[in-house]
Amino acid sequence: MATANGAAAPVDTVTTGPIEGSVKHYQEVDDLRIPVRRINLTNGDTFDVYDTSGPYTDDNATIDLEAGLPKLRDTWTKPQVDGAPTQLAWARQGIITPEMRFIAAREGVEPELVRDEVAAGRAVIPANHKHPELEPTIIGKKFLVKINANIGNSAVSSSIAEEVEKMVWATRWGADTIMDLSTGKNIHETREWILRNSPVPVGTVPIYQALEKVNGDPTQLTWEIYRDTVIEQAEQGVDYMTVHAGVLLRYIPLTAKRVTGIVSRGGSIMAAWCLAHHQESFLYTHFEELCEILAKYDVTFSLGDGLRPGSIADANDEAQFAELRTLGELTKIAKSHGVQVMIEGPGHVPMHKIVENVRLEEELCEEAPFYTLGPLATDIAPAYDHITSAIGAAIIAQAGTAMLCYVTPKEHLGLPNRDDVKVGVITYKIAAHAADLAKGHPHAQRRDDELSKARFEFRWRDQFALSLDPDTAREYHDETLPAEPAKTAHFCSMCGPKFCSMRISADVREYAEKNNLTDVEAIEAGMAEKSAEFADSGKQVYLPVVS
Amino acid sequence: MATANGAAAPVDTVTTGPIEGSVKHYQEVDDLRIPVRRINLTNGDTFDVYDTSGPYTDDNATIDLEAGLPKLRDTWTKPQVDGAPTQLAWARQGIITPEMRFIAAREGVEPELVRDEVAAGRAVIPANHKHPELEPTIIGKKFLVKINANIGNSAVSSSIAEEVEKMVWATRWGADTIMDLSTGKNIHETREWILRNSPVPVGTVPIYQALEKVNGDPTQLTWEIYRDTVIEQAEQGVDYMTVHAGVLLRYIPLTAKRVTGIVSRGGSIMAAWCLAHHQESFLYTHFEELCEILAKYDVTFSLGDGLRPGSIADANDEAQFAELRTLGELTKIAKSHGVQVMIEGPGHVPMHKIVENVRLEEELCEEAPFYTLGPLATDIAPAYDHITSAIGAAIIAQAGTAMLCYVTPKEHLGLPNRDDVKVGVITYKIAAHAADLAKGHPHAQRRDDELSKARFEFRWRDQFALSLDPDTAREYHDETLPAEPAKTAHFCSMCGPKFCSMRISADVREYAEKNNLTDVEAIEAGMAEKSAEFADSGKQVYLPVVS
Repeated sequence: MATANGAAAPVDTVTTGPIEGSVKHYQEVDDLRIPVRRINLTNGDTFDVYDTSGPYTDDNATIDLEAGLPKLRDTWTKPQVDGAPTQLAWARQGIITPEMRFIAAREGVEPELVRDEVAAGRAVIPANHKHPELEPTIIGKKFLVKINANIGNSAVSSSIAEEVEKMVWATRWGADTIMDLSTGKNIHETREWILRNSPVPVGTVPIYQALEKVNGDPTQLTWEIYRDTVIEQAEQGVDYMTVHAGVLLRYIPLTAKRVTGIVSRGGSIMAAWCLAHHQESFLYTHFEELCEILAKYDVTFSLGDGLRPGSIADANDEAQFAELRTLGELTKIAKSHGVQVMIEGPGHVPMHKIVENVRLEEELCEEAPFYTLGPLATDIAPAYDHITSAIGAAIIAQAGTAMLCYVTPKEHLGLPNRDDVKVGVITYKIAAHAADLAKGHPHAQRRDDELSKARFEFRWRDQFALSLDPDTAREYHDETLPAEPAKTAHFCSMCGPKFCSMRISADVREYAEKNNLTDVEAIEAGMAEKSAEFADSGKQVYLPVVS
Repeated sequence: MATANGAAAPVDTVTTGPIEGSVKHYQEVDDLRIPVRRINLTNGDTFDVYDTSGPYTDDNATIDLEAGLPKLRDTWTKPQVDGAPTQLAWARQGIITPEMRFIAAREGVEPELVRDEVAAGRAVIPANHKHPELEPTIIGKKFLVKINANIGNSAVSSSIAEEVEKMVWATRWGADTIMDLSTGKNIHETREWILRNSPVPVGTVPIYQALEKVNGDPTQLTWEIYRDTVIEQAEQGVDYMTVHAGVLLRYIPLTAKRVTGIVSRGGSIMAAWCLAHHQESFLYTHFEELCEILAKYDVTFSLGDGLRPGSIADANDEAQFAELRTLGELTKIAKSHGVQVMIEGPGHVPMHKIVENVRLEEELCEEAPFYTLGPLATDIAPAYDHITSAIGAAIIAQAGTAMLCYVTPKEHLGLPNRDDVKVGVITYKIAAHAADLAKGHPHAQRRDDELSKARFEFRWRDQFALSLDPDTAREYHDETLPAEPAKTAHFCSMCGPKFCSMRISADVREYAEKNNLTDVEAIEAGMAEKSAEFADSGKQVYLPVVS
């Protein structure tokens, strides 16, 4: 890949190699190879988990950033039928595409379920034909909850190399999609490097780049500049685009009395344009032309909530829900063009107002996948907004939100660095997984059970390997008990060798099983005579096992 | 304070001084001085917040750790009436104690509400007569959600000095109570140092110290050893005690098929004792005697959930709820002796099973305050269990839990250090506050609104000062924009000076207000002619304000 000015490639290295305790594995399903992270347990078992990390965690893969990832989907058959060449159109015609089969295998569901949900518009598969490097993923409430990580440089900070590494790093820890929100220099080139090397769908907000083209003055934006930007990005392979077409002129005064006005960048740009021209925005008036462009590439709409609340005080207000109604109208138009649609949501919402957001979105937008930013459940903890928002994210995902946009500890304060990206991703994997459990996803609890069994049996290495972040789990354990024997010790630093509830409990179990004491009747009938025996064995429980 | 062996005092210094951007202030209410943290805003306003930090954050206070804190409550009148000398008994007799008035002022409610909730057993005021240094606090669902921080040494790690500093440090950041869970050396002396210097209620689990007295062999425990330990601790001033009196013999086999058996230390000790002796535990058989001791000092019961689930798989099972029913019976007995009671709860519970815990506890335990450990909403994220549990904690508090026991990042992995204690406390302040908002606490949202206003007006210093952790918020901001002018800059590092939604939005507001465009009709009628004017002013929005 040549750089814009012919200089040396700006990106020469990224993080590679498997996550500790696991290897990359491929499940062969017909002609497809489905990537999984295979965790090797110390008891000889293996445990496979969903894997978003692409070839970077494959020790057998050769990573060539200039060449980009292998063009996996170029060999896949594309259905040749009348209508828009999109997953939505194909699904409606009863066609199960390779993307749908790939996803079904990843999710452990039937391909027909994938097709059916896409056909109904309740799920989307963001997969631009020009992004063949992609390992397809699905976003919809009947599937695993997905998370997005925002990256991108700004006028103040960061380079192409940093952003490509952030993409690799975020997907390593579980980001299902990436949004490149660059607003600084080299927007086109940064995106090119990210797209050619990204195994996950890439989203953008085209208005950011369009604004750069008019030197940052939103009043100078035009449909033509915007349209050309969208085509430029679609040609590169962007899989989904945030479009703030629901910011109507008459909604803007509804924000005037808010505590925090308009906090969406896209929303504020469009509001400024609408006010300056006293017209509805070109995103709204040219929406059908936009649909025709997106349909051609199968770019998915992410209809932006430009008027989302930026504080607890502004949650669920008239401006927010007025825009949501307009997004519902636009959803119908997009789908009539065969374009896939998801809907973006807040923001800042106190817990008791969260579920209403999902119900209203489902009602107004034909259950199009909901894609929310948090929401933050309180405003009072800058530096901890990954946590304030994980609370809201878990609740909104339980209620049916299909994808969660992560929030990092730097939210409201600065640009996330590599460490912040990891903390944001892990935090959102927690929220997403907690929701998968609460929704009763058929496979979700297996990992909890496997880890808890390892914990109960003092298989420390397995506990680390099964966790979302083995490196940090091991590091924390080693802070108090660094010695290698402690990794197999039947105790931990919390209680020490003489005093461990897990050990007592394991002993209780062993004793109960040995004596068939698994129900109340048995214990009532048979235990008195056994008590002396237990007292003897009980004393042995407390002998240290590590010399 | 002399040490046990006459050596130099083991604790010579702790963290003192106010939190950045604030000073200690006392609101005079009748004869009482109510401590608050007074935040000084850059616009000249002040904003007072609830303050748990005691005299340590008061620049005018002299801290003498050997002498202990001033004995605040020694000058308060203690009602002389028939019956148990407890807040519960007094409340039932219609007496409003100084503790109740102090609490009413802290919470911003009427003293009569405090008395009424205590009388009904729906709230407790843990305040041992022998802990006069205490600034009283209330735990009950009609009041602010409280959080507890566990500290204490173990056989493996830490010193008295570290534990006293952890107490001061935890209350600095907002811990409403402290539990001293020491299991290692110098248990008595550590507790003495903590109690004499603690401005918040201190809880313990007396069985831990009793176990030390029998060299760690639970089968050797007796009622007499336990009773003497309880009296020893009550004499020192412990305000509440966890008692696992609900672990009955017939419940133990119910845990045998669990994924993680019995994970409560107290629960496993009592289970081992019950099995060894084939008798109901001395906690259960001597419960009324225990009530008589606690009543004398006004120590509050925290009835422990010895059979709480230790994994998602074990949540809400027969063993857990069987014990809860027994705790309900014990609640009635304790209250008949005039002893205040709260009930401990789980643990590990997936989101969809959380609310049932609260409803059942309220039904079975006469709405005694519920005090839960998290719960963790998933098992798969060791090193992030402050987050997995903050999700569960926020939800269970919204449902009516009165106090949340914090979880630190080291949970399941090691003993928390000072940094972990802070992260745990801040995380739980978030969960508690999110619940206060969701429950509609009358004053809770004021702080969110104040901070959001500061954010919208680019008052960076106020945003830091109003946050739960001003130090970290400022540090994160300074990472990308360290220069002093950036503290007053009308932009941040996320978008840079040319591209800021907050600025655009502020401009939209100004424009709308200037032109009376605060409703749809006005904008429809009057805006066309104004658009040129806005286009002019709009261009100025983007001029950098920092040269």
